[in-house]
Amino acid sequence: MLSLKNKNYKKLLKLNEKLGHYESILSLLYWDDRVCMNPKAAKYRGQQIAIITEYIHKQKTSKNYGKLIESISPEEYEKYSPEWVNIKWWKFEYERNIKIPPKLITKLSQLIPSSLQAWEQDKKEKKFKHLLPFLKKIIEINREMIEKWGYEEEPYEALVKGYEIDINPKQIEKIFTKLKEKLIPLIKKYKDKTETKTNLKNIKFEKEKLEQFCKYLVKKISNLDIRLDPTSHPFATAISPFDVRITTRYTNIESAIFGTLHELGHAIYDYYLPTDKYFGQPVSSSASLSIHESQSRFFENLIGRSLNFWNYFYDELIKYIPEVKKIKLEEFVKSINRIELQPIRTEADETTYNLHIIMRFNIEREIFNKNIKIQEIPELWNETFKEYFGYYPKDDSEGILQDIHWAESLFGYFPTYTLGNLIAAQIYNTLQNNIKTEEIEKGKFENIINFLKENIYLKGKTYTTQELVEKITNEKINPDHFIKYLEKKLQNI
Amino acid sequence: MLSLKNKNYKKLLKLNEKLGHYESILSLLYWDDRVCMNPKAAKYRGQQIAIITEYIHKQKTSKNYGKLIESISPEEYEKYSPEWVNIKWWKFEYERNIKIPPKLITKLSQLIPSSLQAWEQDKKEKKFKHLLPFLKKIIEINREMIEKWGYEEEPYEALVKGYEIDINPKQIEKIFTKLKEKLIPLIKKYKDKTETKTNLKNIKFEKEKLEQFCKYLVKKISNLDIRLDPTSHPFATAISPFDVRITTRYTNIESAIFGTLHELGHAIYDYYLPTDKYFGQPVSSSASLSIHESQSRFFENLIGRSLNFWNYFYDELIKYIPEVKKIKLEEFVKSINRIELQPIRTEADETTYNLHIIMRFNIEREIFNKNIKIQEIPELWNETFKEYFGYYPKDDSEGILQDIHWAESLFGYFPTYTLGNLIAAQIYNTLQNNIKTEEIEKGKFENIINFLKENIYLKGKTYTTQELVEKITNEKINPDHFIKYLEKKLQNI
Repeated sequence: MLSLKNKNYKKLLKLNEKLGHYESILSLLYWDDRVCMNPKAAKYRGQQIAIITEYIHKQKTSKNYGKLIESISPEEYEKYSPEWVNIKWWKFEYERNIKIPPKLITKLSQLIPSSLQAWEQDKKEKKFKHLLPFLKKIIEINREMIEKWGYEEEPYEALVKGYEIDINPKQIEKIFTKLKEKLIPLIKKYKDKTETKTNLKNIKFEKEKLEQFCKYLVKKISNLDIRLDPTSHPFATAISPFDVRITTRYTNIESAIFGTLHELGHAIYDYYLPTDKYFGQPVSSSASLSIHESQSRFFENLIGRSLNFWNYFYDELIKYIPEVKKIKLEEFVKSINRIELQPIRTEADETTYNLHIIMRFNIEREIFNKNIKIQEIPELWNETFKEYFGYYPKDDSEGILQDIHWAESLFGYFPTYTLGNLIAAQIYNTLQNNIKTEEIEKGKFENIINFLKENIYLKGKTYTTQELVEKITNEKINPDHFIKYLEKKLQNI
Repeated sequence: MLSLKNKNYKKLLKLNEKLGHYESILSLLYWDDRVCMNPKAAKYRGQQIAIITEYIHKQKTSKNYGKLIESISPEEYEKYSPEWVNIKWWKFEYERNIKIPPKLITKLSQLIPSSLQAWEQDKKEKKFKHLLPFLKKIIEINREMIEKWGYEEEPYEALVKGYEIDINPKQIEKIFTKLKEKLIPLIKKYKDKTETKTNLKNIKFEKEKLEQFCKYLVKKISNLDIRLDPTSHPFATAISPFDVRITTRYTNIESAIFGTLHELGHAIYDYYLPTDKYFGQPVSSSASLSIHESQSRFFENLIGRSLNFWNYFYDELIKYIPEVKKIKLEEFVKSINRIELQPIRTEADETTYNLHIIMRFNIEREIFNKNIKIQEIPELWNETFKEYFGYYPKDDSEGILQDIHWAESLFGYFPTYTLGNLIAAQIYNTLQNNIKTEEIEKGKFENIINFLKENIYLKGKTYTTQELVEKITNEKINPDHFIKYLEKKLQNI
């Protein structure tokens, strides 16, 4: 006979398995919205999404669910066992969910569509104006939620915790300060050296051929059936076990290729997570956003911007895009590694990208810790940007309006991008001691993917970000590896 | 203050609106399964579909739902008003649903995947063997359901009622007998005359170009944004208002083009149904399967196989498929109208297609009215086929195994195909008296579509099949129009 704890655990498994299917349906609704759907049907898609989201939320905050959650404890199971991981995360999520009154969630979710519209309008008019009242309300609600959630050292901590449970803002600050100290001189040292007149954005291409090349890359690297579709903003999604899909944009060959490689990194991770074995259970999901991002950056940058990689794929690319022949291989690799102090984060190079993130981290922290007024944010943005990049953004569309995140209430999310970059380099360093990375020059990735599979993918959510990084590399997140990796690459360009 | 009847009606509206969104989700799950999904994920898609289907069924058979249904009556509203139509159909559906014990539905739906597998295997082996035990059980369950539903004149009636509420088997028999009497001599008269060595299936084509031509057809004819994707079996689906999608197959130019035109007919109807105005309500759905099929046949055959149509599109087709130039326009039109006594229904021509349906109608009727044994069906099939077509099928794959319908428990469905053909010709006859169909020769369809919109599409489910046909053509379904239309066309070939 099952003990009560086992009975209730099984009940939670069953409930979460069902909710897992609802999550799959939700992912498909979003994917189809962005990839296939006639935009005229947006109103209906919004309602379908709302119905499923509400159903999941209701189930996960129900009294019955709460009773089951409260009746069991991770300590009753072996540390790091699937049961221990599941219960730990169910509790964390449930406790975070029930602290927020449903009314506040409704208020926030009703604000977002209008906030996004105001953001779109302001972006067109290049002036932070219509978004202001919405951002004000969104930040107020976030401040209210912070109070409900509670925090130990600083308010901003409660927001970061939504994405990283074992790295608080103070720890991020330490990592980012060390990084920035080394990044600034590195940028100065190599900026001019990497200057090039070659601009891959000007290469002419046939859209169909470029799409074929990107599909070829997906198959060649992963050896998996991963759909690749065109969208205006690239993304990756896992709909169910064995059903992982990515998108890219074909605006120019650089965006298309690196968009594909980035999303492919996410997709390979999603594909090999143990979702089939532990369907609907936290243990089968990714370790964290930072780890997820480390995998996309791994394929986009560590592999995709290396000379090794293009030693193999440059000739292949020419088969699809003959104009590439005009650029020598060395020039090509220089171009994809050039350092430019771009005003727009999403167009930034691998090196300066992190300055954008450190800056956003500092601004977010001020917004929530120092209770600054919303009207003051654009100026704070512009002054911080001047300090980091040496010039002022020419208008708000190059400043506070460039990212969608705040307009849709994503605060505490930005730091995971740079953490991902650092982790990717740190793991690559360990991997190089174990795997002959020359196989990249032969267009082979099997051993690399197997290393990642064994050390990251199959572990799911068993370990937190720092635990996982330490398990693989024998130390916690250390920005030195990223700096060393960059320096080594930039020296040889 | 609202009266109780109004209050309960509004409650039912709200419930059904929500279920309408669930139906949309279900349509997307099916569409994506056939068009986009990695087949490895089939197990998960099956579970997603089961969860949503079960949810809808539970809601529609709940005690609360039943109480609401029983508290109102269509007679309290004006005949043919949206309220009258909705209540009439809610009641019809509810009463049909609750008569069947959930266990029986589960038993049936659990049988179907294995039954389909057995069908696939038997088809490959060209021998009716593994399907037999499954078909036996499926027919037994259908017989049990017939007893639960009840009937007036004959058991088969209860199955047909699932698709056509105002045409019973006796009436179908009358229509089909009249049709067959005139069809047989027509086939004899024109079979040799339409013989041609031209076979469009042999025309060489570039797949991309053929796809582009089919997409061009969709846009040119409908002037709507309707997605067209490739699948192994063409189909049309309406996911939500403004989101209607079709598929075709690119095995040869004939299949691709007529698959597209057929599904486009379904899609235009779905697009213009008043689903945005009356979302989730029966009144906004199609009149019946026969009427739906009449619209697909209208565009596939009445328009798509006419000389008028190809007078315009022949030159366009050559732009995409230059090899078509080898065939003269007149030969091309002859080829798409040739009469051949094919063994396979889905490959049959417009004329002999109906013999396939009449034959299936008679066999289904015998199965349920005369309680014949399942083992006897293949022989019954082969003998009936010999009687109609003059030769025996060479094996079961050309006989009882050719259709998927019975293996997935679709009985009473076949007659709607031929009813659709008859209705299409009858409506076309009336339309020709009102609209100058020469506009087809100019590649214009606006007036034709407006006629259909006004008389069929916008009416939704207000009228039954016979009522609608009578409203438009001043008489009930009459096969003479179909015969006259065929004769006129075949004379001129």
